[in-house]
Amino acid sequence: MTKHQLTEDVQGEYHYTVGPYAEPVLEIEPGDTVEVETHDAFGGAIETEDDLPSEVLGDYLNPQNGPIYVEGAEPGDALAITIESIEPRGPQPRGTTCTVPNFGGLSATDRTAMLHDPLPEIVKKLDVTTEGTVWNDDITIPYEPFIGTISTSPEINSVDALTPFKHGGNMDLPDVRPGNTVYLPVEVEGGYVYLGDCHAAQGDGELCGVAIEHPTNTTITVDVVEDWELTWPRLESDEFIMSIGSVRPMEDAARAAYADLIAWLADDYGFDEMEAYMLLTQVGHVRLGNMVDPNYTIGAGISKEYL
Amino acid sequence: MTKHQLTEDVQGEYHYTVGPYAEPVLEIEPGDTVEVETHDAFGGAIETEDDLPSEVLGDYLNPQNGPIYVEGAEPGDALAITIESIEPRGPQPRGTTCTVPNFGGLSATDRTAMLHDPLPEIVKKLDVTTEGTVWNDDITIPYEPFIGTISTSPEINSVDALTPFKHGGNMDLPDVRPGNTVYLPVEVEGGYVYLGDCHAAQGDGELCGVAIEHPTNTTITVDVVEDWELTWPRLESDEFIMSIGSVRPMEDAARAAYADLIAWLADDYGFDEMEAYMLLTQVGHVRLGNMVDPNYTIGAGISKEYL
Amino acid sequence: MTKHQLTEDVQGEYHYTVGPYAEPVLEIEPGDTVEVETHDAFGGAIETEDDLPSEVLGDYLNPQNGPIYVEGAEPGDALAITIESIEPRGPQPRGTTCTVPNFGGLSATDRTAMLHDPLPEIVKKLDVTTEGTVWNDDITIPYEPFIGTISTSPEINSVDALTPFKHGGNMDLPDVRPGNTVYLPVEVEGGYVYLGDCHAAQGDGELCGVAIEHPTNTTITVDVVEDWELTWPRLESDEFIMSIGSVRPMEDAARAAYADLIAWLADDYGFDEMEAYMLLTQVGHVRLGNMVDPNYTIGAGISKEYL
Amino acid sequence: MTKHQLTEDVQGEYHYTVGPYAEPVLEIEPGDTVEVETHDAFGGAIETEDDLPSEVLGDYLNPQNGPIYVEGAEPGDALAITIESIEPRGPQPRGTTCTVPNFGGLSATDRTAMLHDPLPEIVKKLDVTTEGTVWNDDITIPYEPFIGTISTSPEINSVDALTPFKHGGNMDLPDVRPGNTVYLPVEVEGGYVYLGDCHAAQGDGELCGVAIEHPTNTTITVDVVEDWELTWPRLESDEFIMSIGSVRPMEDAARAAYADLIAWLADDYGFDEMEAYMLLTQVGHVRLGNMVDPNYTIGAGISKEYL
Repeated sequence: MTKHQLTEDVQGEYHYTVGPYAEPVLEIEPGDTVEVETHDAFGGAIETEDDLPSEVLGDYLNPQNGPIYVEGAEPGDALAITIESIEPRGPQPRGTTCTVPNFGGLSATDRTAMLHDPLPEIVKKLDVTTEGTVWNDDITIPYEPFIGTISTSPEINSVDALTPFKHGGNMDLPDVRPGNTVYLPVEVEGGYVYLGDCHAAQGDGELCGVAIEHPTNTTITVDVVEDWELTWPRLESDEFIMSIGSVRPMEDAARAAYADLIAWLADDYGFDEMEAYMLLTQVGHVRLGNMVDPNYTIGAGISKEYL
Repeated sequence: MTKHQLTEDVQGEYHYTVGPYAEPVLEIEPGDTVEVETHDAFGGAIETEDDLPSEVLGDYLNPQNGPIYVEGAEPGDALAITIESIEPRGPQPRGTTCTVPNFGGLSATDRTAMLHDPLPEIVKKLDVTTEGTVWNDDITIPYEPFIGTISTSPEINSVDALTPFKHGGNMDLPDVRPGNTVYLPVEVEGGYVYLGDCHAAQGDGELCGVAIEHPTNTTITVDVVEDWELTWPRLESDEFIMSIGSVRPMEDAARAAYADLIAWLADDYGFDEMEAYMLLTQVGHVRLGNMVDPNYTIGAGISKEYL
Repeated sequence: MTKHQLTEDVQGEYHYTVGPYAEPVLEIEPGDTVEVETHDAFGGAIETEDDLPSEVLGDYLNPQNGPIYVEGAEPGDALAITIESIEPRGPQPRGTTCTVPNFGGLSATDRTAMLHDPLPEIVKKLDVTTEGTVWNDDITIPYEPFIGTISTSPEINSVDALTPFKHGGNMDLPDVRPGNTVYLPVEVEGGYVYLGDCHAAQGDGELCGVAIEHPTNTTITVDVVEDWELTWPRLESDEFIMSIGSVRPMEDAARAAYADLIAWLADDYGFDEMEAYMLLTQVGHVRLGNMVDPNYTIGAGISKEYL
Repeated sequence: MTKHQLTEDVQGEYHYTVGPYAEPVLEIEPGDTVEVETHDAFGGAIETEDDLPSEVLGDYLNPQNGPIYVEGAEPGDALAITIESIEPRGPQPRGTTCTVPNFGGLSATDRTAMLHDPLPEIVKKLDVTTEGTVWNDDITIPYEPFIGTISTSPEINSVDALTPFKHGGNMDLPDVRPGNTVYLPVEVEGGYVYLGDCHAAQGDGELCGVAIEHPTNTTITVDVVEDWELTWPRLESDEFIMSIGSVRPMEDAARAAYADLIAWLADDYGFDEMEAYMLLTQVGHVRLGNMVDPNYTIGAGISKEYL
């Protein structure tokens, strides 16, 4: 098992669209580990609290590392990507949150279009360490990092890095954290792993649309699960398994996630479908990833003690 | 502080609509405690696994105790209802779950109308004790009871007992459990408390629409908070405060809940609105109550350590 | 066939909630005609362009005439209500449109909650005659009146006059116009017809939430269709039949309307369900009633030439 | 002004994804006309009523002609594409409609996921001429052809041919018909026009998801509007102008369309925004394009008599 370094230099240009049209920046074997220098979701463009998003940001957000080519990964397989560790990097204050005009869970947007003036534009630059994020004199938010955006490539489409869907993408689901494994579909030879957008902490829903964004060294191990066709991304921790739906409206994200979890329980754990449906009614748990991206993300899980 | 008994006898007829048109069955003083004999959501009509919902259920579901008149409660006040305890009652198997045709999170319904045949109708009768619910030989589900439906009365409307909205109602939110306090608006003199529909356990979303329904002795303490006009129900535990939105689509329930929580943080905890918006982005938590009722319910909360 | 007068005097108090708890103001025989003096949706409270909604409106909007008791109407029947004519009444400027804070299709609301400041509050008082509404020097909008709110009573619930649902209500559907017949369910003995909220004109969706509201003399003929259990309101014109769904999100209103239309085609016109489904794909038409009320309303129709 | 032929031969491979990564098949000057041999949405794979979609269709649907490179079209411009004519081609029965498992407005789908068995799979092959489509012995549906899918290319993304969004795409809006002009954004040099999926007729919403699909000779004229940055596609007929929103849930499609129409009225027709908002409340009209695709499409229009 080799450990690879996907540094900024190796990466070169980061990607704002996720598809099969980019050249792989790295080729790895199943079981290999990759340490990735991720940018924050703004590509570092917000350096001070005077850098207003409407002034300093370009047309595209959420730069992605990759694609990483995984030898032997064939369409119809899945990738099992275990998040080994996430560590902040770069000079302080390396954390950023802000409000972005016409974006966010309690703001009119281009989709939920309204006639209101935009909300105020506010930037907070924050010191982030593995001890936590210093929010203000009173509040330090524990460092609970995860990967906001991670995906494989669709077969022929190329998807905006801000959009989560069946390939993974910008799910903004805090369960994609160190210790856990996310399963993604292989749609092209080599799978083409993209990732970025690590968060130092995030509440359920990523309410204003911008978590505590920060550049990181993120280490993942990538393996291939042969002949496992996924409809939606799945996730496994020591305690639970989870299916992840990303679609609008939000109830459809919940439906997609729970229906996929039932299919998983039926296919791999011997459950009858209706029995699984009724059991999840009693013990299923739901995590709201995001309520701000082009698709909303919901994870539906069940404790392994019931499997 | 008096302790009242709202037995089946005292109650007489249970109610399937929640409004100002019923006569109070009990008058209490602020601070009083009431022990309530609640029915299950089917009024006990499903006694064996051969009692199919389509055959044994009547036109209305979810019988409610009440209304309870609270002396001194005036429009513009709120009620603070603390759930003291919930205990199962009645002969075993006293727990019921089932699938109901054209109802449920992964079923076509009268609203999400489709052309499919209904899903199979399955009834499970279950032994419920304070030790847990025996699901099958392998699985016992911990007893984590809560009140599925609790409300005050709207001022002039009378709302189906299956519908959650600003008055509370059929929120199916597991946080309405012993030890916690739910805050509800007073819209009519005396407040008119209705409650019922206790669950022995429930997963997030109440997926198939029927949790582990059971009859109970439920004890609540009711107090009045003067001059506190609520937009949506709120809840408080030792660890967190929470606002509860119930509306469709589900993203609007999340918006309503989070927006109300921000208003609460601004009004009572000294937060600036935009600051609260950004902090909740990092530390807010979301609980999906139901994804099956006429309105979907989401609770948005924040840990008291940040207050 | 008698013609009744439901004047302001006969009506007395208007109703802001629609249910079985009010006393009938009129009893009629099937086939009778009633001329109704309707108020505008603001009960006439907005008299000049300086009367801002936030200042002059009370807690409730949309005053309803009724209930009208129809002899012989029994639960399980339907009422067939033909709109005979609608004429403006009262002193000029008798038309009103305005924007109402936190209400409207392109505004944050209590449900689609956001942090924006409310939109500007603007009132337009308008001269309305059967020739049209004088919008400004350049624009006169043709007089195309219809009944915004018309319903029977639910069996035990009492519904806000602003809410459309299975009983009819605030559908704001321009097809409820003179010459057409709307079919509504009978849930209580006598049916209990409520109506009001006539519009001098309205675009699809009633975008800002306030059409050209005006007081009227509205004449309807009410008949009973025995043993016709309706799921949703239906409508018939010389040219088409239509089913009307009112629910959120809007796609569910479309689903409910089209599914009910298919049921109608199957039950009364001899269509196979799947055949009707495919035919409506080619020739069905959709009318968006409102995109602003607690439920969104969509009518789905088919030309009688295909029946 | 040159007239080009984009025959099947010139086209070569059709495209199932719409983006900047394909090579143009034709280069034209602004003002040129192109006659295009479009395939039906199934690429002709359904030849008889025994060809079930689940058996004969491949992974991708909705083959597109193009991309057509328009000289001088620069990012920030718009294309004005006038539909000159649409004529059916190919051997009879050249029309196809069908139901496709897990697809359609009244079916569970991968997004509105449920546990139901799929609906029956039914194929209808139909004779289509400019006189109409022979549905059965009693019904002939008038030939009212339009282009179901037409778009420019996004700048860096490549979008599934089944998805409508800001670039146009699979809007399934019957107003994209001969005589009308659709305006699309230019995001890449040359604009890259894709089109296909012509319908011989379609009801509002394209209920089952499959209109009367047929191969055609479709003739368009393409012009460049310099410096006109579009948020959403727009359309113009002799009678009205219209903005087209494509997003989920459906109310957001309506919001996007109406908000864009207001912006258009403000920018190009001298309206005050709030005035336009109130006027559209009275005279706006809405066309539901599709209620079945990954985004729902709504067009919001206003008669030119008000401009």
